[in-house]
Amino acid sequence: MTNVLYLPELREMLAKNDAAALAEFCTELHPARTAEFMEGLTAKEAWAVLQHAELPLRVEIFGFFETGKQIEIIETLDRAEMAAFIGNLPPDDRVDLLTEVRPWIVEELMPLIPSDERRDIQRLSAYPEDTAGAVMTTQFARLSEDLPVSQAQNKIARQAEELETIYYLYVVDEEDHLRGLVSFRQLVSALGKPDTRIGQLMERDLVTVNVTDDQEEVAARVARYDLLAIPVVDDEHHMLGIITHDDVIDVVREEATEDAHRIAAVAPLDVGYLETRLLTLTWKRGIWLTLLFFGALLTTAALGEYESVTKTYAWLVLFLPLVISTGGNTGGQSAALVIRALATRDITLGDWWRVIRRELAIGLLLGGFLGAIGYLIALRIAPTYAAATVIPLTLLLIVLCSTLLGSLLPLAFRRFGLDPAMMSNPFVSVLIDVLGIIIYMKVALSLLPPGAQ
Amino acid sequence: MTNVLYLPELREMLAKNDAAALAEFCTELHPARTAEFMEGLTAKEAWAVLQHAELPLRVEIFGFFETGKQIEIIETLDRAEMAAFIGNLPPDDRVDLLTEVRPWIVEELMPLIPSDERRDIQRLSAYPEDTAGAVMTTQFARLSEDLPVSQAQNKIARQAEELETIYYLYVVDEEDHLRGLVSFRQLVSALGKPDTRIGQLMERDLVTVNVTDDQEEVAARVARYDLLAIPVVDDEHHMLGIITHDDVIDVVREEATEDAHRIAAVAPLDVGYLETRLLTLTWKRGIWLTLLFFGALLTTAALGEYESVTKTYAWLVLFLPLVISTGGNTGGQSAALVIRALATRDITLGDWWRVIRRELAIGLLLGGFLGAIGYLIALRIAPTYAAATVIPLTLLLIVLCSTLLGSLLPLAFRRFGLDPAMMSNPFVSVLIDVLGIIIYMKVALSLLPPGAQ
Repeated sequence: MTNVLYLPELREMLAKNDAAALAEFCTELHPARTAEFMEGLTAKEAWAVLQHAELPLRVEIFGFFETGKQIEIIETLDRAEMAAFIGNLPPDDRVDLLTEVRPWIVEELMPLIPSDERRDIQRLSAYPEDTAGAVMTTQFARLSEDLPVSQAQNKIARQAEELETIYYLYVVDEEDHLRGLVSFRQLVSALGKPDTRIGQLMERDLVTVNVTDDQEEVAARVARYDLLAIPVVDDEHHMLGIITHDDVIDVVREEATEDAHRIAAVAPLDVGYLETRLLTLTWKRGIWLTLLFFGALLTTAALGEYESVTKTYAWLVLFLPLVISTGGNTGGQSAALVIRALATRDITLGDWWRVIRRELAIGLLLGGFLGAIGYLIALRIAPTYAAATVIPLTLLLIVLCSTLLGSLLPLAFRRFGLDPAMMSNPFVSVLIDVLGIIIYMKVALSLLPPGAQ
Repeated sequence: MTNVLYLPELREMLAKNDAAALAEFCTELHPARTAEFMEGLTAKEAWAVLQHAELPLRVEIFGFFETGKQIEIIETLDRAEMAAFIGNLPPDDRVDLLTEVRPWIVEELMPLIPSDERRDIQRLSAYPEDTAGAVMTTQFARLSEDLPVSQAQNKIARQAEELETIYYLYVVDEEDHLRGLVSFRQLVSALGKPDTRIGQLMERDLVTVNVTDDQEEVAARVARYDLLAIPVVDDEHHMLGIITHDDVIDVVREEATEDAHRIAAVAPLDVGYLETRLLTLTWKRGIWLTLLFFGALLTTAALGEYESVTKTYAWLVLFLPLVISTGGNTGGQSAALVIRALATRDITLGDWWRVIRRELAIGLLLGGFLGAIGYLIALRIAPTYAAATVIPLTLLLIVLCSTLLGSLLPLAFRRFGLDPAMMSNPFVSVLIDVLGIIIYMKVALSLLPPGAQ
């Protein structure tokens, strides 16, 4: 299915203004696929095609356009028409979208957006990025406790089209405090007893998130409790919105990508790899690379400090990259394990002592093993048996230090409210490079006869 | 809310066999929280408490126990009772669970499981791990095309309790070919026209996955199309099962953790960091670390090859860790970016040329910049201005090689059907370490006067 094939036909329909064919094109396929077929159209053409879909479908297809196309449509078409359309977009999506539209255009659009929607946009955009408030939508199904089941279904059916999900129905009191939850499944099962009140049916023990909670916490809770949507409340337990399963999947993917980038010392990208501008990408890598470069310069300084040792025992130089990279690899493993375990709530800060004990035990085992191999090889290169022991001892100490640093640093970052993935890897690698050289040289100085080769 | 607080009370209720209190305990809270409160109980105690919950709730609470506790219950309690209970567990969950139970116990259990369920278990466990077939459940709502809307809702309401989701209803023909999909929302909206047939209401353009597709592909599609569940079909478009949103979230998290571990050269863990046995964890890290260690030994060989150079120009040794680690960091960035972009379907194999061009451009910019800094520092250490140029030239070449290798290797692995995250990082780092030394030495040999200091 190559999407370009459809393009000439679509353009022909537009030229002929073939309303029937265009309406069929809009309804025939899954909205996401319809959007894909329209990829090659200009913003103006795409908008013209969308006129042949009814409003809810139009909103849906538009939602599957690439962000660039969405922005182009909003920026280039008639302001009043766009303002009305924005009023119909899902509350969470339109806020995300408007942050990408040029500010002066947003300023022109805002006064034209219906006042209820405008206030909603302003409220949602006030929440800091990556918090529950920034991800939630304000459209959810509300019921009151004393509503009979028989009426509830009709009430929901009437609202169905404009709600993000009708499968979780939230029970609130007059002041919008969250009181309970009725799933549509429960409602359907209870239809046999039409006089049952919602209050008798609802679950009262709800899993919620606070509006200021980090989106990672939201994802962890939805995953833990297998929820379709999670209600977002403020400190007084007012119901502010919901976050639905599809947005949670996006959050999980986004967080995983950010973590992977941060672990590899890349500042997180806002859009995909290919969409990121070349200079932006260079910058997001360059700042960390430069920082790491200056960190690595400490290794030059450390080696300068011990230049007499490397000159006297030139064979030590041969093992220098080996001991450093073994330390780096071990530390990287520990850091990645602890960072992911923290992200998935497998471990918490309270487990720090268990983590350290494990890492030390593993460090002893791995360091001992690699040290033994290293010794066998050093025997062939070092001048004496005694001299060769520098290598295994160095490897053991470096591997131990690496497991310790690699696991402690992410925990320490979390402890101080930083992202554990943020800087652990760069820090670990620089620290271990420098520490590795110092350990290596100190061990050599203490084991090798002074002066002699 | 510390869960241990409840334990003495729970044990007291059990000792007194206080059925009313135990039944209340089971129903009062969210099943996941009930499960958490029971964490400290023995398998036998936990099972005794569960007897006071009705079957569907019992299954749900059990589903939120930690895997270890689930296995213990199944392995230690009465076989016949367990076999009957397993028959009631969700099809996808019980297959996962039984792979963890000791094989000889599974053999004892299987003949006792009701035959329909037994066949279902055998069918599902035949699918390879990490495929759609291994993640799907076989319980979904089926409708036929000619059913009137008025009857459909009642039919679903009757099945509601044993289905994983009733919100997507799948329309199949007599041979179980998937024909279409009706969402519960559509059904509710259509209740005003009770004579409408399901076939008139259903969507025919469905997003599906093949039963042999990788679970990463499943996750990508559900995320792309914002689905609540995705149908799993075979090559003849027979409907085999569905994968629901909550399982997709688990898949996304699992894949992200696996990728993060693989990027850091840790073989993926089957359970959480703290639950993994110490020797298993040591092994899963040790195999890669040892492989990397032998790879790094090539650096020793490479340096041995050029020992005359490092002896003649001892100052070159001071920059050795710096140039190697800069290459490693750059290559790691490129690899992480490409691996995640492949995982999230941001790029495909077809984009390889665009990726390479970007990486080369970025490599030139970063290598040029870091080279310039390196030159300033080399001027203070190298004997002459001319000699100092070895450092910037080496840095530029190494950074270029690293961006190229770091981006090409994951693409090549994907090309040959391997997991791009699997070995890219270890390979990249070993290759760059060795290549870095060779580049460094070659540049030095060609720029520095032979023999002289």
